Amino acid sequence: MKTSEKNIERLLLYRRILISFKNIGKTNIYSKQLASLADSTPAQVRRDIMSIGYSGSPVHGYDLEKLIDSISEFLDSNNLQKVALVGLGHLGRSIIDYFQGRRPKLMIAAVFDRDPDKIDRVMHGCRCYSNEKILKVIPKENINIAIIAVPASGAQDVADLLVQAGIKGILNYAPVKLTLPPDIYVENRDMILAVEKVAYFARKITTEGSST
Amino acid sequence: MKTSEKNIERLLLYRRILISFKNIGKTNIYSKQLASLADSTPAQVRRDIMSIGYSGSPVHGYDLEKLIDSISEFLDSNNLQKVALVGLGHLGRSIIDYFQGRRPKLMIAAVFDRDPDKIDRVMHGCRCYSNEKILKVIPKENINIAIIAVPASGAQDVADLLVQAGIKGILNYAPVKLTLPPDIYVENRDMILAVEKVAYFARKITTEGSST
Repeated sequence: MKTSEKNIERLLLYRRILISFKNIGKTNIYSKQLASLADSTPAQVRRDIMSIGYSGSPVHGYDLEKLIDSISEFLDSNNLQKVALVGLGHLGRSIIDYFQGRRPKLMIAAVFDRDPDKIDRVMHGCRCYSNEKILKVIPKENINIAIIAVPASGAQDVADLLVQAGIKGILNYAPVKLTLPPDIYVENRDMILAVEKVAYFARKITTEGSST
Repeated sequence: MKTSEKNIERLLLYRRILISFKNIGKTNIYSKQLASLADSTPAQVRRDIMSIGYSGSPVHGYDLEKLIDSISEFLDSNNLQKVALVGLGHLGRSIIDYFQGRRPKLMIAAVFDRDPDKIDRVMHGCRCYSNEKILKVIPKENINIAIIAVPASGAQDVADLLVQAGIKGILNYAPVKLTLPPDIYVENRDMILAVEKVAYFARKITTEGSST
């Protein structure tokens, strides 16, 4: 399977939907239901599920448990993947709160901040280190993913350190374009751009609605 | 111009890049430079810029100021657009801190939380109301965009209230699929899915790197 970003995004979303279906006591799901919940089409859902080698018969719908296992086998590492979080302001705190303990194969294993008052605090089982320890702690803990939750002005310096420490994937919440080597995977989550995008489409809806 | 989500995302990103170029004292930019910073191609950049009716000659590069104005005229409302934020936990606080005052035509005008201790607090010029005031304050303030920053368990109830109050666009940070009328624009920013996506591609890089 050629795994494009869109493929992976859809499979991750399917898994979340399947888990919530399972949590309310269901055992099966039809491609039509899954498609509707994922804003997709039944044909796309069936194609995606076939592409990961799942061979269940969809006559009575997919078996939830088996399909979750099959998607997880495709998406997840066999071992726990460790994540570093840089920046323990409000955003960093919310990321730990939302994330920690939610996924069996992913764990925030170290937190970094430059504020001396935060060093050595422990949150959700996670110790906070000074930014100066990035080069030491990340290789030692075998961490290969990092989340950047620092202000725009400090993000590039942090990113440079993370790459030097061996990080291969970065989730960047700082509203700034990072300059990185081509073999590093980056996902940008700029809050301002997200609000601007919603504002544009909300205005279009409002304008078109009022002109009819 | 058929304005797809991808079109709008690219124009918003171009504008952010152009503004940061202007802020460091530049006056012009070549489509090649802009494409490189936006992870796009020069042909795509030129097509996008032509599509919004900008007719500058690109021989010496685009005039930064004129191009910013032209994109803003296309993207922005003539009037200030007001935003509501629901949830004043760590995530909500970080959204106000990052966002407020950064865009001339967009402003968080009201904040809502269900915690009585937070009611009537003022942050960045923004007063916090009880969730029960959503139906009253949003129409009165003429707000049509909302950001949901509450835990998953409360997100659907909040979304229902927002729609009833007249909201047309929602930026949803809660890790849950919202059920909404078809004429509401929703943008989901699930942190867990974002980390999972980066984890998948980081692992692919690591595995492929170590196998060569």
